[in-house]
Amino acid sequence: MASLDEGWADPARLYREGRRARLLLDAAREAAADSVGCRPDELVFTSSGTRAVHSGIAGALAGRRRVGDHLIVSAVEHSSVLHSAAAHEVDGGAVTEVPVDRGGAVDPDAYAAALRADTALACLQSANHEVGTEQPVAEVAAACRAAGVPLLVDAAQSLPWGPVEGDWSLLTGSAHKWGGPSGVGLLVVRKGVRFAPPGAVDERESGRAAGFENIPAVVAAAASLRAVRAEAAAQGARLRELTERIRARVPALVPDVEVVGDPVRRLPHLVTFSCLYVDGETVLHELDRAGFSVSSGSSCTSSTLTPSHVLRAMGVVSEGNVRVSLPLGTEEAEVERFLDVLPGVVRGVRDTLGAPVEGGSGDADAVTVDALGMSCPLPVIELARAIGRVRVGGTVTVLADDEVAAVDIPAWCWTRQQEYVGERPADRGVAYVVRRSS
Amino acid sequence: MASLDEGWADPARLYREGRRARLLLDAAREAAADSVGCRPDELVFTSSGTRAVHSGIAGALAGRRRVGDHLIVSAVEHSSVLHSAAAHEVDGGAVTEVPVDRGGAVDPDAYAAALRADTALACLQSANHEVGTEQPVAEVAAACRAAGVPLLVDAAQSLPWGPVEGDWSLLTGSAHKWGGPSGVGLLVVRKGVRFAPPGAVDERESGRAAGFENIPAVVAAAASLRAVRAEAAAQGARLRELTERIRARVPALVPDVEVVGDPVRRLPHLVTFSCLYVDGETVLHELDRAGFSVSSGSSCTSSTLTPSHVLRAMGVVSEGNVRVSLPLGTEEAEVERFLDVLPGVVRGVRDTLGAPVEGGSGDADAVTVDALGMSCPLPVIELARAIGRVRVGGTVTVLADDEVAAVDIPAWCWTRQQEYVGERPADRGVAYVVRRSS
Repeated sequence: MASLDEGWADPARLYREGRRARLLLDAAREAAADSVGCRPDELVFTSSGTRAVHSGIAGALAGRRRVGDHLIVSAVEHSSVLHSAAAHEVDGGAVTEVPVDRGGAVDPDAYAAALRADTALACLQSANHEVGTEQPVAEVAAACRAAGVPLLVDAAQSLPWGPVEGDWSLLTGSAHKWGGPSGVGLLVVRKGVRFAPPGAVDERESGRAAGFENIPAVVAAAASLRAVRAEAAAQGARLRELTERIRARVPALVPDVEVVGDPVRRLPHLVTFSCLYVDGETVLHELDRAGFSVSSGSSCTSSTLTPSHVLRAMGVVSEGNVRVSLPLGTEEAEVERFLDVLPGVVRGVRDTLGAPVEGGSGDADAVTVDALGMSCPLPVIELARAIGRVRVGGTVTVLADDEVAAVDIPAWCWTRQQEYVGERPADRGVAYVVRRSS
Repeated sequence: MASLDEGWADPARLYREGRRARLLLDAAREAAADSVGCRPDELVFTSSGTRAVHSGIAGALAGRRRVGDHLIVSAVEHSSVLHSAAAHEVDGGAVTEVPVDRGGAVDPDAYAAALRADTALACLQSANHEVGTEQPVAEVAAACRAAGVPLLVDAAQSLPWGPVEGDWSLLTGSAHKWGGPSGVGLLVVRKGVRFAPPGAVDERESGRAAGFENIPAVVAAAASLRAVRAEAAAQGARLRELTERIRARVPALVPDVEVVGDPVRRLPHLVTFSCLYVDGETVLHELDRAGFSVSSGSSCTSSTLTPSHVLRAMGVVSEGNVRVSLPLGTEEAEVERFLDVLPGVVRGVRDTLGAPVEGGSGDADAVTVDALGMSCPLPVIELARAIGRVRVGGTVTVLADDEVAAVDIPAWCWTRQQEYVGERPADRGVAYVVRRSS
């Protein structure tokens, strides 16, 4: 609020309001650099975290154009990183996507193996935004350093909790992710990293972020990062206990649930689980009616949502996905109320959809189920109903044209310990073949 | 303030805070579109006016790549437009810069003559940001339309006063220019205009402005534009009278002053003048001490400022340049106090520099003045001192290595009605030759 009054002027101007704005901007840069663990002249403020990522990746790729045009990303990066990678491919560049394990983490050795002589840039998030899994950034940074390749770390998720460890070269963040205002991101480029901002530039922010600086928001962003960090240890321990409670109790309260993400190396405030045989949006709407604002990586019914690429890369069920992000200061009683409400919400949605009772001792050798025209979670519900009609060793073939089935049917098999045989094109849609194992 | 509380959430989310944010964003877009005079689905919010210009030009050029790579700009565009043009040239594109007259306006016929078969885009500001001159946008838009070339109008300066007339194709604006918050620009792309945003994009703002929307600022921007417009007619008339007073009285109060910019077709709140034989920064600092925050297009002493490309293109004196921008609500008494203070400030600076008394009846045929190593305004002061030492018809040659001399010596000649003969390279610096006419 104070900086709205004090910091509205142009910091490039010589009159007093301009000089005061410049002082505020410089102080905010020093505070943010201190929180990040870099020099003030290595940090510029951008208009969003997405802009920081887009500019950081494009600038680093352009700066190392002579080395090559190979870019490495993990499969579970934020969409801003993957959009940058897609734009790089459109421009003729090469991209390697490093896969993750079922917990959502990259293997540092697999990441290191992707480094090539023509690798211009490598990108790895500090922690995943959908499932909370922390990535082995320090190990990957060491491998990149050994290969002479700069590593860009998207630290949007972890910056509220502490600086990023390891010998990274570029780093991005987003103020609204740490409770700061919208409209502020940060981009750090370590001294010595080749960087060439593409497109039109101006004299502001070392030529790395064009346009009139949003100083009131920048000041609020730096102040809020400092404030959040001051409480990070205490809040982190408290929220970790609460998310641990959700992780432990949801599977006991709700049948057919998978909690996803690494149980130990994870962000303190985030927990994600998938409920079989429901669609995430309906669960989300019911929780919203009960006063809980949660997100979902499902895309069963909404035409505007695509199924989460993170859940897909992890190979876990995307249907009935619920992501709970606890704000700082969340009370234990609110978590308990959530745990009270959730089972009834899921049960209600399952009742409406006619969710299957699994089991049965059918004797058919092979059953084909027509789920054409059905959208998530119905193809999986049809599969679960049919599996009881075949003998152990028999197969169920599901015909489906909902693309989410390609994620959820294999993931269902992994969860239910049935054998996923494979998929093949059918006259209409795709035929997914599952063998009953037990 | 209200939208900081109500609009912090992600408008892409389905829970109630997200839906409320979406409603606020939609309402802001409708209000802004109404003020601009376009359809809501033609308008996106960007993170600054500069970003709107950079994205608008790059997107329009990319969208018409098949037509050609020729870009037209006026010589007095905002730096964001000229930076985009420079980036386009670096990428191999062709740029034509249309000159302006001494009042700062382009000639519509000259602009139309620059249109070519391979012209992808034309750009023209609605009014100039340094001298306030309004451009003939409607005439130029008609010529562009006849040639099938889209016209992008940088309307940052004029949007507070009213919509842009004429059949333009793209339009940009900046909220902090109309008294709104930092961190909001707008980009309008008329339906039917080919547009291909370059680089990484995301699903936000129709794919034309990536990154989390800054909804609190967007709401404030739209509301402030509406509020400013409601008062525009009354405030415009009032401020025009006050700037007219400055235009009329400054030349009477201060010797050797030139008021620049079109006296009639101009913004109501802006007035610019140049004072011979002083440097603009010192005048600016003295006015700042007296409580007046003005800008300057001079760059006599500051290493960080370049001389105004606008004044250079107009061919007017850049030394001692003072730009007065009256905020809404400026009182008559404040203007009177400014007019009281200004003459003493300029006189004080001139006394310190030893400003010349012109005239004299020298009889030399030719005098050479060594102003090497001197910076603006000293070379012009040396010239003014020397002109009295030669006969009418005689010449003064000024040796100078300050690049601003190339602007200010010809402009001084125009102002003093002396003949500017020309310039040539010298052993050191440049030799500027002036013939005494009277």
